[in-house]
Amino acid sequence: MVPAVSADSSSTSFTPLVVLELASDTKQEAIAWLLSRIRDPQQNGGAELLVEQLGLGDGGSEKENPNLFLVGAKWQRLLSGAEEVGLFKEFSDGSMRGFTCANKHNFKHFEGDGDSFLSMAECQYIIKHELDTLRAKDETHVPGHPQAKLYPGKSIIRRLQSKGVLIQVFPLHEKEELKRLSYSWYQKVKLSFQPLDDIRRYYGEGQALYFGFLEYFTFALVPMALIGVPYYLFDWENYDKYVVFAVFNLVWCTVILELWKRFSTSLAYSWGTLSRKKAFEEPRPGFHGVLGFNPVTGREEPLDSNTKRQLRVYLVSLPFVLLCLYLSLYVMMIYFLMEGWVLSVHDEEPTFWTGVLLFIPSIIYAVVIEIMNLVYRYAAEFLTEWENHRLESSYQNQLVLKVLVFNFFNCFASLFYIAFAMQDMALLRQSLATLLITSQILNQFMEAFLPYWLQRRRNKKMMRKVQKRKAVAEAELPLAEQVRLEADMSTYLGTFDDYLELFLLFGYVSLFSCVYPLAAVLVVLNNITEVYSDAFKMCCVFKRPFSEPAANIGVWQLAFEAMSVIAVVTNCSLIGMSPQVKAYFPESEMQLILWTVAIEHGLLAFKFILSFIIPDVPKHIQIKLSRLEFESLEALKKKKMLEASELTKGIQ
Amino acid sequence: MVPAVSADSSSTSFTPLVVLELASDTKQEAIAWLLSRIRDPQQNGGAELLVEQLGLGDGGSEKENPNLFLVGAKWQRLLSGAEEVGLFKEFSDGSMRGFTCANKHNFKHFEGDGDSFLSMAECQYIIKHELDTLRAKDETHVPGHPQAKLYPGKSIIRRLQSKGVLIQVFPLHEKEELKRLSYSWYQKVKLSFQPLDDIRRYYGEGQALYFGFLEYFTFALVPMALIGVPYYLFDWENYDKYVVFAVFNLVWCTVILELWKRFSTSLAYSWGTLSRKKAFEEPRPGFHGVLGFNPVTGREEPLDSNTKRQLRVYLVSLPFVLLCLYLSLYVMMIYFLMEGWVLSVHDEEPTFWTGVLLFIPSIIYAVVIEIMNLVYRYAAEFLTEWENHRLESSYQNQLVLKVLVFNFFNCFASLFYIAFAMQDMALLRQSLATLLITSQILNQFMEAFLPYWLQRRRNKKMMRKVQKRKAVAEAELPLAEQVRLEADMSTYLGTFDDYLELFLLFGYVSLFSCVYPLAAVLVVLNNITEVYSDAFKMCCVFKRPFSEPAANIGVWQLAFEAMSVIAVVTNCSLIGMSPQVKAYFPESEMQLILWTVAIEHGLLAFKFILSFIIPDVPKHIQIKLSRLEFESLEALKKKKMLEASELTKGIQ
Repeated sequence: MVPAVSADSSSTSFTPLVVLELASDTKQEAIAWLLSRIRDPQQNGGAELLVEQLGLGDGGSEKENPNLFLVGAKWQRLLSGAEEVGLFKEFSDGSMRGFTCANKHNFKHFEGDGDSFLSMAECQYIIKHELDTLRAKDETHVPGHPQAKLYPGKSIIRRLQSKGVLIQVFPLHEKEELKRLSYSWYQKVKLSFQPLDDIRRYYGEGQALYFGFLEYFTFALVPMALIGVPYYLFDWENYDKYVVFAVFNLVWCTVILELWKRFSTSLAYSWGTLSRKKAFEEPRPGFHGVLGFNPVTGREEPLDSNTKRQLRVYLVSLPFVLLCLYLSLYVMMIYFLMEGWVLSVHDEEPTFWTGVLLFIPSIIYAVVIEIMNLVYRYAAEFLTEWENHRLESSYQNQLVLKVLVFNFFNCFASLFYIAFAMQDMALLRQSLATLLITSQILNQFMEAFLPYWLQRRRNKKMMRKVQKRKAVAEAELPLAEQVRLEADMSTYLGTFDDYLELFLLFGYVSLFSCVYPLAAVLVVLNNITEVYSDAFKMCCVFKRPFSEPAANIGVWQLAFEAMSVIAVVTNCSLIGMSPQVKAYFPESEMQLILWTVAIEHGLLAFKFILSFIIPDVPKHIQIKLSRLEFESLEALKKKKMLEASELTKGIQ
Repeated sequence: MVPAVSADSSSTSFTPLVVLELASDTKQEAIAWLLSRIRDPQQNGGAELLVEQLGLGDGGSEKENPNLFLVGAKWQRLLSGAEEVGLFKEFSDGSMRGFTCANKHNFKHFEGDGDSFLSMAECQYIIKHELDTLRAKDETHVPGHPQAKLYPGKSIIRRLQSKGVLIQVFPLHEKEELKRLSYSWYQKVKLSFQPLDDIRRYYGEGQALYFGFLEYFTFALVPMALIGVPYYLFDWENYDKYVVFAVFNLVWCTVILELWKRFSTSLAYSWGTLSRKKAFEEPRPGFHGVLGFNPVTGREEPLDSNTKRQLRVYLVSLPFVLLCLYLSLYVMMIYFLMEGWVLSVHDEEPTFWTGVLLFIPSIIYAVVIEIMNLVYRYAAEFLTEWENHRLESSYQNQLVLKVLVFNFFNCFASLFYIAFAMQDMALLRQSLATLLITSQILNQFMEAFLPYWLQRRRNKKMMRKVQKRKAVAEAELPLAEQVRLEADMSTYLGTFDDYLELFLLFGYVSLFSCVYPLAAVLVVLNNITEVYSDAFKMCCVFKRPFSEPAANIGVWQLAFEAMSVIAVVTNCSLIGMSPQVKAYFPESEMQLILWTVAIEHGLLAFKFILSFIIPDVPKHIQIKLSRLEFESLEALKKKKMLEASELTKGIQ
């Protein structure tokens, strides 16, 4: 058998960084137009990138999509792109500064013409940014696709995506890098920290911060777990010791959240994302509005009224969320009614069928919750899109906030009901343990094992196919096959679900810590496996995600802090409700409640003071930031001085 | 009688701005040295200011201090000083920018050589800054005063002050300006706002913000007062309506505090103090430490370890404050014991003497509280000085915090005790009304009337003396007399006590609003007179204070917010304790408390969300700030580019 000629055509003249997949029925004129717009020099409104069609692989060409395009760029273009996106790199004096081409030789690790200065993830981020900001000039629609309307300033890529012409854009993996990273990350048997800098280099700051938080959170829970074990083993029902345990937990939660802020600030500084300014963020590609001039930068971009957005948020989204929360509570109440009814039926005449019936309400409730979560998620995404946020970050924040509140209700409403309405501590402990353990097992299975297994099957099939045709022995796939394989991999949808999982786990640990001290132990164990399974899934299961610059975990910090405030309230109430504490106030229940409330207020005040006292930014980073700011103000003065002296010269 | 020749020598060749008063026994060599240091050019480490001795007035020269010096400066020097202190002025495009001499013609209102560009208050502020930062070179002590040790970098003025050689430094009033200002401020009968911009121009931003806050606070209380009146008149004991009133009050307090932030940000922006950076603040004159290089600016200045300061704050100051609070509570308990004892004595055998005895505890308590306040104030100042804060602002914050907490305890502890330990609402209402009214009357008397009366007497004496000697008819005093008159005026000690008074008034309004709805009315009336009496006292009673740039009311914002949080707790408790509300829960007191606590938590959560939703900086100012920041970063890039191109040229 002769090897197919097409295998050769897949070798490109540049390093391919990003893949564009267009629908197979895309018109040729649209493709030609898009490629020319991507290749056009920047003066003409193009992206000035390199782009080439991927040759057909060895798989049957009739089934495969021919419209895969590899995008790359010259080094000079990438460097000027790095300046455009405002990348911060380490300067020769050790501080982090915005990269400028004019000053490139003063940055650390800039050698020769700088072809190894940017990491591949950074290059891919730059290319994505350039593609996203590729805007229509005077086209009224995409050539050959009259339904894909365009107007001056509209992001082309976004329109193609929304009309289904562009199926996906994704960055390519680096086989060698990935092997090294996965070895040091999870394959090596070791007792060491995660290689956060390598993760950041390969996946970007958003991912690295997630893994940093996961690791930090795990270590931070270890003291709670260690203290929880003897409580579990020896003092199961001794509540006055639980008071000490609960108070320790609450203070500890506050301290770790505050310290995380400092730690993440250090990370973000060393990764150069701390000083990137929000106001200079380009509008997100989905943002639409009348074209105008940004009042800050003076650049042309779509504008939309802030007031309108606020009205959308408060008059539509907020009532919708509240309605959904009400629905969720309503469903929970129906569940408890069904539960009670089934129990009474079973108690009256216990048969095999009533025994089976006992499980029905829980199953229905679980299914309904899952469906509600799913439907709500789509609704939340639709609403947040419709709110038309200018910045990707505020879009994400609004989305997270919506989903978060609803998930919190769905997960914890039944626990709250058991704890405070039914006041059944044994049931609470049992429900908590069941929920925690089942959700962990399910998560690990759904998140890592299942996708891995699917991907493995797909991998093997592709390998077999290629080997059959080419009869080559090497395990290395040719580029065309590699690209097609990656195009078929699942898409990683961001850290959202990972954080949500951590958030709910944090809730299990903190909200009812005094009835189930083993929770911290379980969560620590879960987190350790989570690090491995998440790392594994990032390396082997998913397409490489685009790196997203992040200076902190954003709205999640607030979410965790809110949870720790709620935890103070729940724990104090639980302790106040315990029979052992009640025994101290035999004559007056009022006294007991007043004491509980007083202590709770004291704890809340202490939390607040603590978060006020611990500075969010470590001193040494504060100094570096101030220095940069000081220098930039001095530079502004100098610039003004130069302008003034030129003006004077002009007059003379 | 021949007019004294010395009267002529008091006319100076420059506009006198600031007066230095040295002790009459200062050695001539010290004076000569100080004057030469002040006159020396900046390259030689001097202040490059103009200084002249004030001639002896017509008063008996044997009694008067001859060592009064007038300080002024050339316009060029003041302009370069404005750049040094980082003054922000309005630019030609309407934005506020840091003033630079090189770019002076692009600033609004800069005409000719700029001799009317800076207000007199700004000039005085600049001169004060230059004097304060006049540092010793290689002198080991002040010539002629070996006890006044010096070392390189030590502020000369500060050392002279601490050794009693320099008695005072104060800026001169402008007679004409002051007349205009006082007319538009408080003499004119009108219904208009205060002339905040004029106040700022004459007294600086710190003062203007205080008066702005006083006015804002008064207007903000009007709705509460209006709603309070019918409650007072018709529904004295109807508590379910009080619930509505209290909830309105609480929400209103939160809203006005949040809106004040926005309002003060707008003011501070238009006054150019919003963007002045804290990190570039010069160390305060009293700050001492080993001379080193500031890590931010690279300038030489004293340095002191941050950790040491923290240890001083937490290990010495904090325990001391707690001890004082404990003492204050202890004194209060003794008062209540005495009160109870006296009452029992009077009830047993009521005679005239036991009737007199009834007043004794209150009088003793009031006197002890005043003494404690005074002693504590000195201790707090000493401690805060000893903590050795680098910045004037953090010194002020620490001092305010210390005094505030103690004053809060002293003023409100007895009310809290009556409300929650004695649960005597009638007594609470009575004490509240008494405290509020007496403190208002006392304040107005002590603050304005008494100093005014003293000053008036002094004024008249001086006038009579001068008229007697010179036999002139005009009401205008010659410069020398004017300066001596001002030197004898009381010194205004800053806005501290004024804010403290407002803070305590706010406490009376908000903490127990539901037992005494008339409080807001009284406070509004008090504030209206307060505006007039404060304005009057600033114009006629005190020496002109140095203007202090301020971007907000600083730690007071936090104090008012903390008060409004405490108010939620107290109001909810008071409502929960009322017999009318108790009547709704006849069977179970527990239910009542739980409901009260739940509502309180809801209100606190609502307050928090509200303060989160309302942005602190109005949108249009946010845009202007972002633009400045963006421009300064772009300028930094350009500066780098220039440097790089020069480097390249150098190589070629």
